[in-house]
Amino acid sequence: MHNNGVTAPKGFLASGVACGLKKNGNKDLAMVVSKVKATAAGIFTTNVVKGHSLIWTRDKIKSGYARAIVINSGCANACLGSTGDNDAADMAKYASSLIKCETEQVMLGSTGVIGFPLDMNKIKNGITDAYASLSDEGGILAAEAIMTTDTFSKEASKTIEIDGKTITIGGMSKGSGMIHPNMATMISLITTDASISIEMLDKALRHVADKSFNRISVDGDTSVCDQLVIMANGQGGNAPIILEGSAFEALVSALLEVSISLSKMLAKDGEGATKLIEIRAENCEDIESAHLILNAIAKSPLVKTAFFGQDANWGRIFTAAGYSGVSFNPDLVDIYLGELLVCKNGIGLRFDEEKASDILKKDEIIVTLDFKSGKFNDRIWTCDLSFDYVKINGSYRS
Amino acid sequence: MHNNGVTAPKGFLASGVACGLKKNGNKDLAMVVSKVKATAAGIFTTNVVKGHSLIWTRDKIKSGYARAIVINSGCANACLGSTGDNDAADMAKYASSLIKCETEQVMLGSTGVIGFPLDMNKIKNGITDAYASLSDEGGILAAEAIMTTDTFSKEASKTIEIDGKTITIGGMSKGSGMIHPNMATMISLITTDASISIEMLDKALRHVADKSFNRISVDGDTSVCDQLVIMANGQGGNAPIILEGSAFEALVSALLEVSISLSKMLAKDGEGATKLIEIRAENCEDIESAHLILNAIAKSPLVKTAFFGQDANWGRIFTAAGYSGVSFNPDLVDIYLGELLVCKNGIGLRFDEEKASDILKKDEIIVTLDFKSGKFNDRIWTCDLSFDYVKINGSYRS
Repeated sequence: MHNNGVTAPKGFLASGVACGLKKNGNKDLAMVVSKVKATAAGIFTTNVVKGHSLIWTRDKIKSGYARAIVINSGCANACLGSTGDNDAADMAKYASSLIKCETEQVMLGSTGVIGFPLDMNKIKNGITDAYASLSDEGGILAAEAIMTTDTFSKEASKTIEIDGKTITIGGMSKGSGMIHPNMATMISLITTDASISIEMLDKALRHVADKSFNRISVDGDTSVCDQLVIMANGQGGNAPIILEGSAFEALVSALLEVSISLSKMLAKDGEGATKLIEIRAENCEDIESAHLILNAIAKSPLVKTAFFGQDANWGRIFTAAGYSGVSFNPDLVDIYLGELLVCKNGIGLRFDEEKASDILKKDEIIVTLDFKSGKFNDRIWTCDLSFDYVKINGSYRS
Repeated sequence: MHNNGVTAPKGFLASGVACGLKKNGNKDLAMVVSKVKATAAGIFTTNVVKGHSLIWTRDKIKSGYARAIVINSGCANACLGSTGDNDAADMAKYASSLIKCETEQVMLGSTGVIGFPLDMNKIKNGITDAYASLSDEGGILAAEAIMTTDTFSKEASKTIEIDGKTITIGGMSKGSGMIHPNMATMISLITTDASISIEMLDKALRHVADKSFNRISVDGDTSVCDQLVIMANGQGGNAPIILEGSAFEALVSALLEVSISLSKMLAKDGEGATKLIEIRAENCEDIESAHLILNAIAKSPLVKTAFFGQDANWGRIFTAAGYSGVSFNPDLVDIYLGELLVCKNGIGLRFDEEKASDILKKDEIIVTLDFKSGKFNDRIWTCDLSFDYVKINGSYRS
């Protein structure tokens, strides 16, 4: 088995099992355990409605430490009142009794349909099985067990040297609908064997999320279960990172690489997606403007269906920028599909339709808007909107 | 021919012709002329990118008067620099030479693909034909000529008494993509034979738009050509309305009825739509919160695909409310599909799935969210997101 995800760093065990939450019998419960207590940080949905498992994790991770995380798919454990809170606490308690750690050090994640209670018998059987099958190569099974409508499991890892020590970062994510910046747009777990203080870990995570997980959009929906958790267990043996400096920078840079890899996979595997689209806003007056413009374009169903249809309809891209709420000068804007200039100074060009068609046929497309009014650049990853998005979401619950 | 639209009021003539802008040979140029100079008002897209025909109308309508409007479909006349502005001026000039009025009293509208210049030969031939075929029963032809991806033409009218005089209001609209509040979400023209001052007409229009055209959403996209224009020619013979009072109220009320009829048609004929969905936010803390929540729900592709799939997935509705930016207490929220309570105090109920299915099978569905935290109610009309939306928009330009 390859080991390219959360068990790539030293000292992490993982497993993924099927406990019957998913009707189709697929894996639906993942467990990731650090052999020693890890420093931990998390970023959680900005939705005012929050899942019960997520609330547990958000509250417990405040201590800065975690030993394990249990994530189930197939049921969101959301909108259930005290039942949901009690079930979350029971999940953590049961897992901690097996792992032999404090209950508060077991993080949770749940994803799936909202409004149905967890079947706690299945969950407990699943936790028993998952604990029994923990392995230092089990990352891939965990990545499979957290999938919902994902068409492939999502893992990434990166190894660097810090203080002459080999430090590894591994991650797994699941999408693939309800994806949008603000925040963490899915469930992701990143592990590392770096030694780093709680404070610096939290700082690194926030910095990286804003350039990766917070820069993807599938459909503009943010779920009530979105969370990104990182655990650093120090098993790599570097001198603890407690300040900014070259070691911190190296870690952040590798963390960003892993996070961008996962983020692009999330966008590419957006429900029904046939293409990964990177949209760049360049030379904007400020970073907030760039972000607002990119959000509007990445959310526009008209832009996304045009990409599905491989139609060089740049007018829709320009239109979406125009209603983003940013007051830019349209007469300065250049728009490129790939390298092809299709609109210059706000005026449509008679471009080579065949060239445009060749660009739009590809699996990955870069679109650039140059606002020529400042120095700020940003980018976002999104996907097209296809028949299959409608098919998947027209019948998800049933 | 029925006369239920812009030529229902006295003193308005209209026509709709095919001048070759649409490849399929359908009607693509509409002309509406008032026999006498009318007071006029307009509301225009908030998009910072604006079509050239729209800019002409926005600038000229500031005088408060109009004699005519010429609207073409098949080409947006947008993003063309000075060419677009010159073409707009030429359209107005040529039409005014036939109508024998001031050029500045000819309003314009253009809708279609962005970035391609108008074929002015076709436009002028079309204006010649349209002028020659003006008729006091031509409203329906004009309504057909402004259609783009609309599947049916949209007209409404209402007759009331003011001062013992019969006053009629008529309107036509075209959708059906790029539809979202803020603003006028399409091209609409309302005519009336009421006598009313410029100031009061403008006031009436803004009041009414906020409760009708600004309360519909198909896909969250606002186009660069959106406009709503009203012309009041005084041919009904009422004492001029120059102040608020019972005559003004009666007119506003009838205007609202016509506008809501047109708005519901726009939502129902949203691209690919199979259902009209009315979403109500009740007992909100303030009206702005209600509006933000409704916008988020009406824009959510996950909500809209669930309605297409006739899936009682109320969790998506609650989720969309939760990321609307409004900070409400989720533990107070009740959600109804039709009359069926599916979520009480933020907790999912075990509702009768068969009853839910019966409700969701219908062509028109009302969804209500009760926030129990204030006195403000609002509503929005939207539609589902179907395979056909993707089909229509994946190949619109070609």
